[in-house]
Amino acid sequence: MTVRFAILGAGRIGQVHARAVAATMGAKLVAIADPLAEAARKVADQYGCDIRTIDAIADSADVDAVVICTPTDTHADLIEQCARAGKAIFCEKPVDLDVARVKACLKVVDATNATLMVGFQRRFDPDFMALKRAIDGGAIGDVEMITLTSRDPGAPPADYIKRSGGIFRDMTIHDFDVARWLLGEEIATVQASASVLTDPAIKVLGDYDSVNIILTTASGKQCTITNSRRASYGYDQRIEVHGSKGSVRAENHREANIEIANASGYTRPPLLNFFMSRYTAAYANEIAAFVDAVAKGGATPTTGHDGLRALELADAALQSAQTGHAIRLSDKA
Amino acid sequence: MTVRFAILGAGRIGQVHARAVAATMGAKLVAIADPLAEAARKVADQYGCDIRTIDAIADSADVDAVVICTPTDTHADLIEQCARAGKAIFCEKPVDLDVARVKACLKVVDATNATLMVGFQRRFDPDFMALKRAIDGGAIGDVEMITLTSRDPGAPPADYIKRSGGIFRDMTIHDFDVARWLLGEEIATVQASASVLTDPAIKVLGDYDSVNIILTTASGKQCTITNSRRASYGYDQRIEVHGSKGSVRAENHREANIEIANASGYTRPPLLNFFMSRYTAAYANEIAAFVDAVAKGGATPTTGHDGLRALELADAALQSAQTGHAIRLSDKA
Amino acid sequence: MTVRFAILGAGRIGQVHARAVAATMGAKLVAIADPLAEAARKVADQYGCDIRTIDAIADSADVDAVVICTPTDTHADLIEQCARAGKAIFCEKPVDLDVARVKACLKVVDATNATLMVGFQRRFDPDFMALKRAIDGGAIGDVEMITLTSRDPGAPPADYIKRSGGIFRDMTIHDFDVARWLLGEEIATVQASASVLTDPAIKVLGDYDSVNIILTTASGKQCTITNSRRASYGYDQRIEVHGSKGSVRAENHREANIEIANASGYTRPPLLNFFMSRYTAAYANEIAAFVDAVAKGGATPTTGHDGLRALELADAALQSAQTGHAIRLSDKA
Amino acid sequence: MTVRFAILGAGRIGQVHARAVAATMGAKLVAIADPLAEAARKVADQYGCDIRTIDAIADSADVDAVVICTPTDTHADLIEQCARAGKAIFCEKPVDLDVARVKACLKVVDATNATLMVGFQRRFDPDFMALKRAIDGGAIGDVEMITLTSRDPGAPPADYIKRSGGIFRDMTIHDFDVARWLLGEEIATVQASASVLTDPAIKVLGDYDSVNIILTTASGKQCTITNSRRASYGYDQRIEVHGSKGSVRAENHREANIEIANASGYTRPPLLNFFMSRYTAAYANEIAAFVDAVAKGGATPTTGHDGLRALELADAALQSAQTGHAIRLSDKA
Repeated sequence: MTVRFAILGAGRIGQVHARAVAATMGAKLVAIADPLAEAARKVADQYGCDIRTIDAIADSADVDAVVICTPTDTHADLIEQCARAGKAIFCEKPVDLDVARVKACLKVVDATNATLMVGFQRRFDPDFMALKRAIDGGAIGDVEMITLTSRDPGAPPADYIKRSGGIFRDMTIHDFDVARWLLGEEIATVQASASVLTDPAIKVLGDYDSVNIILTTASGKQCTITNSRRASYGYDQRIEVHGSKGSVRAENHREANIEIANASGYTRPPLLNFFMSRYTAAYANEIAAFVDAVAKGGATPTTGHDGLRALELADAALQSAQTGHAIRLSDKA
Repeated sequence: MTVRFAILGAGRIGQVHARAVAATMGAKLVAIADPLAEAARKVADQYGCDIRTIDAIADSADVDAVVICTPTDTHADLIEQCARAGKAIFCEKPVDLDVARVKACLKVVDATNATLMVGFQRRFDPDFMALKRAIDGGAIGDVEMITLTSRDPGAPPADYIKRSGGIFRDMTIHDFDVARWLLGEEIATVQASASVLTDPAIKVLGDYDSVNIILTTASGKQCTITNSRRASYGYDQRIEVHGSKGSVRAENHREANIEIANASGYTRPPLLNFFMSRYTAAYANEIAAFVDAVAKGGATPTTGHDGLRALELADAALQSAQTGHAIRLSDKA
Repeated sequence: MTVRFAILGAGRIGQVHARAVAATMGAKLVAIADPLAEAARKVADQYGCDIRTIDAIADSADVDAVVICTPTDTHADLIEQCARAGKAIFCEKPVDLDVARVKACLKVVDATNATLMVGFQRRFDPDFMALKRAIDGGAIGDVEMITLTSRDPGAPPADYIKRSGGIFRDMTIHDFDVARWLLGEEIATVQASASVLTDPAIKVLGDYDSVNIILTTASGKQCTITNSRRASYGYDQRIEVHGSKGSVRAENHREANIEIANASGYTRPPLLNFFMSRYTAAYANEIAAFVDAVAKGGATPTTGHDGLRALELADAALQSAQTGHAIRLSDKA
Repeated sequence: MTVRFAILGAGRIGQVHARAVAATMGAKLVAIADPLAEAARKVADQYGCDIRTIDAIADSADVDAVVICTPTDTHADLIEQCARAGKAIFCEKPVDLDVARVKACLKVVDATNATLMVGFQRRFDPDFMALKRAIDGGAIGDVEMITLTSRDPGAPPADYIKRSGGIFRDMTIHDFDVARWLLGEEIATVQASASVLTDPAIKVLGDYDSVNIILTTASGKQCTITNSRRASYGYDQRIEVHGSKGSVRAENHREANIEIANASGYTRPPLLNFFMSRYTAAYANEIAAFVDAVAKGGATPTTGHDGLRALELADAALQSAQTGHAIRLSDKA
């Protein structure tokens, strides 16, 4: 079976997914939608697909699956529309910035028996997958403590920050998902500290740029997350998992795998500087996993529930940073 | 001027300091004291020094400085006795497990104008010193966020744990001191999570084996500390400091600097497995710094105040772990 | 201008180049030729191109460039045929195993003014390109001494070895080309040592599996090459260049960028095990560079002359290994 | 039994050995000899030993062993004098720069049944010892090919070079000894290339500064040595051994074990810059091994024969570099 795709949104991430769909065996790009005619045209020309409106796509018999790459505030509505239209749905995170809206949306997904995958691409990074396989294969025994380090090369523009829901919902949300994926147990409490160290403008916007979070499970496993909006040396993305029998870590990706030695020392290049180049393989793997799930009718590796839980953790972290209290999560989403 | 030393306590750490004193230019080991005659004899034979009682040492005109290596619960009394006797004092951490007792002891130190150095050897590790110099030299700009990782190869015996004051006062106390040293600003709040993951016996003793702490300063700088009493791969001691212009980290020390490659991959040896072999150079540097301060009459690089602050942070961390609340420290010790 | 391609030979490397052509902007795959109908069909189906005979391709007005991926003993004839037919030619190394035949072939290329690029893909590896840029940018001063390490995971089958021309012409030839590329000066003398250490069957075939070579230029720059047909830890491909002001090296590529620590030590995965996965990016870059040269009418980055010189070095190395004498190369090819 | 030592020569290396003797259990420094009264006085004061003439030392009943740290051209005579006086002898390499003189000297050593250890300190470096243990323990199977890299931070003064016997006898001699130690088989042929790249003054002195050597054993094992008198990044000392089942390498030592990351990349400090700081532990281990051999009456780990063989390899390398021919060594020393 070939899964026939439409992409909703021809922006930066829409183009990434269009390329992934085009390159995936068993997938075919049928249509692209975007209010900007030029953006849609560019994708259509490159991959030889139609340009259609979103409504037309929802009604298209020759479209099996959609990839939602539109602005965040449209995600929940589009998920509901496509779910009702019987499409399999891949949606970029988050489903929505509001937990109640997410829950309402997921009810529609459940009611329509729709397939929904929320895009947490880090789970599909080859190195992180190798790390997960090492853990699952028993290489480190029982997981005990995890250290996640995520630092952006620089803060996004003020306009983006305003609509982002804040650092916890925009940036840390990926780490929350990775933490849940690796801990293998739901998180019971969240403690967080947040401050503004890189740019006072971020404070004016009511957001933070430097945060640390401790997540603790009922059995006492712990995960720390350290995030910064500034890293002069590139896009810093590391995982270290400590277990009863050992530890495993995934290292950063550099611009090139060389080292120069001179009187100043031994220097390797900075890190890849952009999430799209760092996670190129992850984006391709993610779409391949979605195609596989749709073609075989199985569960998607990441779900709407995963999107909801990550958002709840973000809300809890914000509350902890503001009150200084450890925030307890109910076990039910 | 040669600084003439007596060592109080001929146990494991007393022997380390005896060797350091013997090897330090400008220092001379005059006497050793220990209730176990055999232990004292061994040191006396090796370094050609006298065996005296502690009281005799306090009264000895040919002793300028003492190194207190006796059990923790004797530290404060011995500091007071030696301070009154006009000796310069190097005391292993902690001064006492009780903050009030420490404060009373430091009053005596102040009143007698005694020189007191508390042994936080990590500040004297050559790698950590190089890291500190890099920061002070501006290599990473302003310090923003610090990650300290300290993991012991295995938990100490139950008897030790009982008398240790718990993991925060016994193990994390070194990280608290390192955090203060590197942050360059007093810590305002402490958040901690603690659990027992390695051995239920530790729970029975009322202690923890796995803890994470977030320290935050008034200006919003943050430091995370991750501690475990178990690390199959050796004694894990790492520092990473993230600043406005870059980051610097100090790596672990291995048993040997080799790598074996075969069909299973590329393998380097485990870490040094014991704090005394890991910090050999630090112990020597620490005594040299003390000798230098005594000889020149200057301030010691670590003080009784440093010992007190680290203990207060340990108390705050314990309170936070037990209540889930961020604990605020007053700015006065 | 779009460069219209035909691929001669639909085997393993033909498929690699077909994919590269398909993925390169400004290139279009028009036809595939292979005596095995099934192999040709597979490529034609995948990329939507014609199946034609080699003679038909030579006569095709809609083919601008050919990629020769046929067996080595056909290369020279096909280069001549395609050169006379006015096609731009990309040919896998070597042009031929016999220096006289190569020279005759290159005369035809010259006489027909044909564009000929010989495939030395290592020059197009992103890491090696970064290393070359570092050298050209002055990072290490003047190049003085180079160390090239190339080890195959295992020896090829006996049938391949018989037709290969021996380890120097088959395997070391890539290192000879890299040496020339990086030394920036022609090689004056070759010294080599060769033995059979991995499999006596290789000795029976009159070949070697373990060789070391020293190349020296007229000004005294030196390059050592170490080759083995066996490496349990994967496909070992390293370059280290030592210069007057520093040194630069390119590291190996691993299966994943993780490290596992336990009581046995710290282990990273083995190296990528296959030249095609190791040099995936290089193969793509190589074709892109050829397309660029053809489209713009400029010189190709590697030429028939480069192919000839590498072969002459291989012949000299073999002679040195057999006689023990340093072999002097004339400065004219 | 305590081995009672005299040191002949109170220069730089004599001081290193005096310190090693003083720090070694079972050894005692009894006397120092040096024509410069001040130099001898300094050592005598520091370690509390006598000052005696060399002749007096040879006649001293309270001296069991001597360490010869005098200029090279006195070594052979002093070895003979001390051997006849019944002393155990540790002599810095080389015994002499002339093979015939070395052979004559070793005849006296044999005739007098004297214990003679020639100082090849690299065999006692903890990392290289760990590498050797890995090989002996079967970690890499049979040794096949070795790569030795030794680069000095800078060339010695012209005066030293004049008396040194040239780069092969002065610098490469250590690599020749390491090669013999690790190959586990005598070397059959030597091929070498040598040039002057760092300073024309070295050419005027008839010496080289940049050399590569291939050593081959009768069974076909090979070792390459690359040497340079210039390395801007410090004292470069690496070993890589490739075997039938894997490979093992020993890495360089840095000034500190830290890494700084910023917009320019990730930088580790340069290497230790001086052979005495790089090989501090090796020098101590070497003397301890000598003391052990003398105390137990066993064979020394390195012998006069080892010194002779390394010198013969140096001579062969020089001859090969001058003639371009592979030089065959007889199997008898």
